[in-house]
Amino acid sequence: MFESAELGHKIKKSQYEKEIPALRVALLEAQDELRQGAEFPVIIIVGGLDGSGRGATVNLLNEWMDPRHIETHGMGEPSDEELDRPMMWRFWRSLPPKGKIGVFFGSWYTWPILNRVNGITEDADLDQSLARARRLEKMLVDEGALLIKLWLHLSKEQQKKRLKALEKNPATRWKVTARDWKRYKAYDSFRAVHETVIRQTSTAEAPWMVIEGEDDNYRNLTVANIVLRAIRGRLQHDAAQTVKAPPPPLMPSLDCLHLLKTLNMGQSLEKAEFRKKLEKYQTKLGLLMRHPKFKYMSVIAVFEGNDAAGKGGAIRRITRAIDARSYQVIPIAAPTEEERAQPYLWRFWRHLPRKGRMCIFDRSWYGRVLVERVEGYCSPADWMRAYSEINDFEGQMERHNLLVVKYWLAISEEEQLRRFEEREKTSFKRFKITEEDWRNREKWEDYVQAVCDMVDRTSTSEAPWTLVEADNKYFARIKVLKTMCARIEQKLKELEASGIDYLDKPQKKRALSL
Amino acid sequence: MFESAELGHKIKKSQYEKEIPALRVALLEAQDELRQGAEFPVIIIVGGLDGSGRGATVNLLNEWMDPRHIETHGMGEPSDEELDRPMMWRFWRSLPPKGKIGVFFGSWYTWPILNRVNGITEDADLDQSLARARRLEKMLVDEGALLIKLWLHLSKEQQKKRLKALEKNPATRWKVTARDWKRYKAYDSFRAVHETVIRQTSTAEAPWMVIEGEDDNYRNLTVANIVLRAIRGRLQHDAAQTVKAPPPPLMPSLDCLHLLKTLNMGQSLEKAEFRKKLEKYQTKLGLLMRHPKFKYMSVIAVFEGNDAAGKGGAIRRITRAIDARSYQVIPIAAPTEEERAQPYLWRFWRHLPRKGRMCIFDRSWYGRVLVERVEGYCSPADWMRAYSEINDFEGQMERHNLLVVKYWLAISEEEQLRRFEEREKTSFKRFKITEEDWRNREKWEDYVQAVCDMVDRTSTSEAPWTLVEADNKYFARIKVLKTMCARIEQKLKELEASGIDYLDKPQKKRALSL
Repeated sequence: MFESAELGHKIKKSQYEKEIPALRVALLEAQDELRQGAEFPVIIIVGGLDGSGRGATVNLLNEWMDPRHIETHGMGEPSDEELDRPMMWRFWRSLPPKGKIGVFFGSWYTWPILNRVNGITEDADLDQSLARARRLEKMLVDEGALLIKLWLHLSKEQQKKRLKALEKNPATRWKVTARDWKRYKAYDSFRAVHETVIRQTSTAEAPWMVIEGEDDNYRNLTVANIVLRAIRGRLQHDAAQTVKAPPPPLMPSLDCLHLLKTLNMGQSLEKAEFRKKLEKYQTKLGLLMRHPKFKYMSVIAVFEGNDAAGKGGAIRRITRAIDARSYQVIPIAAPTEEERAQPYLWRFWRHLPRKGRMCIFDRSWYGRVLVERVEGYCSPADWMRAYSEINDFEGQMERHNLLVVKYWLAISEEEQLRRFEEREKTSFKRFKITEEDWRNREKWEDYVQAVCDMVDRTSTSEAPWTLVEADNKYFARIKVLKTMCARIEQKLKELEASGIDYLDKPQKKRALSL
Repeated sequence: MFESAELGHKIKKSQYEKEIPALRVALLEAQDELRQGAEFPVIIIVGGLDGSGRGATVNLLNEWMDPRHIETHGMGEPSDEELDRPMMWRFWRSLPPKGKIGVFFGSWYTWPILNRVNGITEDADLDQSLARARRLEKMLVDEGALLIKLWLHLSKEQQKKRLKALEKNPATRWKVTARDWKRYKAYDSFRAVHETVIRQTSTAEAPWMVIEGEDDNYRNLTVANIVLRAIRGRLQHDAAQTVKAPPPPLMPSLDCLHLLKTLNMGQSLEKAEFRKKLEKYQTKLGLLMRHPKFKYMSVIAVFEGNDAAGKGGAIRRITRAIDARSYQVIPIAAPTEEERAQPYLWRFWRHLPRKGRMCIFDRSWYGRVLVERVEGYCSPADWMRAYSEINDFEGQMERHNLLVVKYWLAISEEEQLRRFEEREKTSFKRFKITEEDWRNREKWEDYVQAVCDMVDRTSTSEAPWTLVEADNKYFARIKVLKTMCARIEQKLKELEASGIDYLDKPQKKRALSL
């Protein structure tokens, strides 16, 4: 994998200085064209060995292009904020929007590599991390991103020479630490793990570019050329357009039986009974959230359901029970301009709560496979891949003890009509009902199909869907609260049994590569 | 994942009988259109629980379509032949060619699932197997295959009922064995592993279709509809054509330094020295192949090189040293018609040797990233993905103790010219030189680039490329033999150290899910 990057590549000063002016102009022009209206972001990952010139490469990109439209992210030790969330959170919050360039010094590869070299994880764990990286990158590319992966390499001899040279020069001495020399001693282990990384994550869409880091001129020119050619190639192609093959059709519905039909919609509660149970479960929920182990977990509650199914009311019955500082309700409407410039999951990632908290989504990422599918806001190929992308997303939450609780609030067509009419009659409820609600109603059957596919393809034992019979609001609210309590209780038991200690250093480090 | 497949779906006899005639006609028509000239094969995988009607489903497909153009493969216990090779070999040898339908009863999922349920492997191993399955399926889809994945499911209650019903009926009693009841007891474990499988391997291109297996009418109609709609959808799309996005450009070559240039082409051997060393290494190779542990491994030697670089001569120096029954030389020319109807790796998979043998490829799968790239026989997107597909292919060999030894025989442009002219002058060598050789020579620089990319992207510590300076034939032949001996010797040492026992049952079983 490193053959061509250990040859001793060199560019003479005269050639270097001759080529730079035109190259810089070309880079600026490409960046400008990108910024003016290209429908894709550029993500540049800079990885490689210590002393191989990663920092210089990042500086170079900022120097040779317009730094106002480059976002640079040094991914060093994660902050407390970041450690409280799935590891990918820190990358999601740093993704560049369409038309911009994001440069990552360190990436989702950094910790899987370090943990493997330091023996904190096994080969199989590394393979799992790399399989996830492949899936993540496939998603980014499918969402339109141009991903440029630069790997700076040095031979063992070169690394030693370079560290010594840096140490000798008073201006760069600070760059070399004891850690660098420690890592140099582990050169062979690093090289073996790096090879695995490059082998398993070089794909046709996002291949690694392995660059010899020894000679500054060669490295700079090569990096600049790779970036320029990749952006230019992509700008030219975007005009031409890709035609995606349509995905295979999903399950036919042959008998008239489907999931939502099996719900017993007649279930209800009397007001007195409701009040009693409400108090019981609200008290319980409050207690659970003050459990000593709750600070090791967090809760993501997802509310989806028919229009007028009572999502808001159910959510209020939860929030009234708990400390106002410990939760957040995120209502999801049409995406903002900023959100539309990002992969669709971005606007949900940004809201993931810290440990010890709850985040309630009033509608969610499932919009992709519900409204966007039914209304044709995205192509079939796009919503089809969303099922596995969502499973990956929730999988990351699970691995980091974020409990995902998902509700579909189902009401019958007749009950919805009754509620719509009532809303129109009541002045202070009228704002809740719009033309769009009536239009959605006409697509009732399409939504039924979309809901059934969604449940079948995203309900897992770790993050199951709870279907809530919501024709009777009292019944629905209690079922929501009761399920929430049961799920949290079970999770707390698991945490107690696992003996996980959130402050334990090896566990903390291991979590970095999940 | 199984929500909709535990509802108790049913189709009434009257509806069933009414729908069948038209459905069968439509299936036959689709099959006929496929056979008449469609440029893709159909691969149908039938997986699921015992007693869920997998066998009946396979029979149904054969009964309702023209069985002459369906190949059915029951993937039960592997044969000795199959155990001697990487597990995927048995699937590759059974892949349907373009225009045909292949039905697999059992698949690459069978053993990863069984081994996990039986505790032979861990969760991480299962994840690795599933990541490989995803990559395999991506490759099949990229190569044009239509992949239909059917999963037949039963609830625990249903499975019990079904096994009892089968047992009660004298005509079907034989279908239920003690193993079935043992597996029924492990229902919950199976269900959990099945969920993981479906979750991780349902992709937009090849989603699982989970079908309730209880009611024969429902199951039959659903399966037939899925197959019909998938084939029809694909036939329609093929006419429309997909436009692939071009991959990003590879590394620019900025200084004039490349791998092949660093070779010391002046190296040579005198004839007497050659004879001495030839005898030494030929003897050694013969001994190594009679080593008691050699029966646990096999050798795949790959010879690539410039035209007239001396591949044939080098190969003969190997084969003369070893038992004629223990090796095979496979010369690779343009693919046959049969081979063109398959994914490009198919024609190499078919030749993989059994344990204890050697297979020598005179040119190989690397043609994809050499001649096919340079001559434009496949698109850039196709040869770009070949690097990781080839790494996956060789990875499977490595995991099964097939040693991969790869040679690039390099000669200089001048030496090639000399040899071409000599060949034209010598009557009995004239057949070796064609117009094509002269044409290839004009593309020398393109080939250099292709070779460097190939080495950089497919040379791994387990399967490194050996660059052979071949201007002097004596030197080249000895380097080839010496490298071969060293690699085999090292592998034998590893086998001895690992204490692997090829006849050990748990190890044999574990290997089935690699």
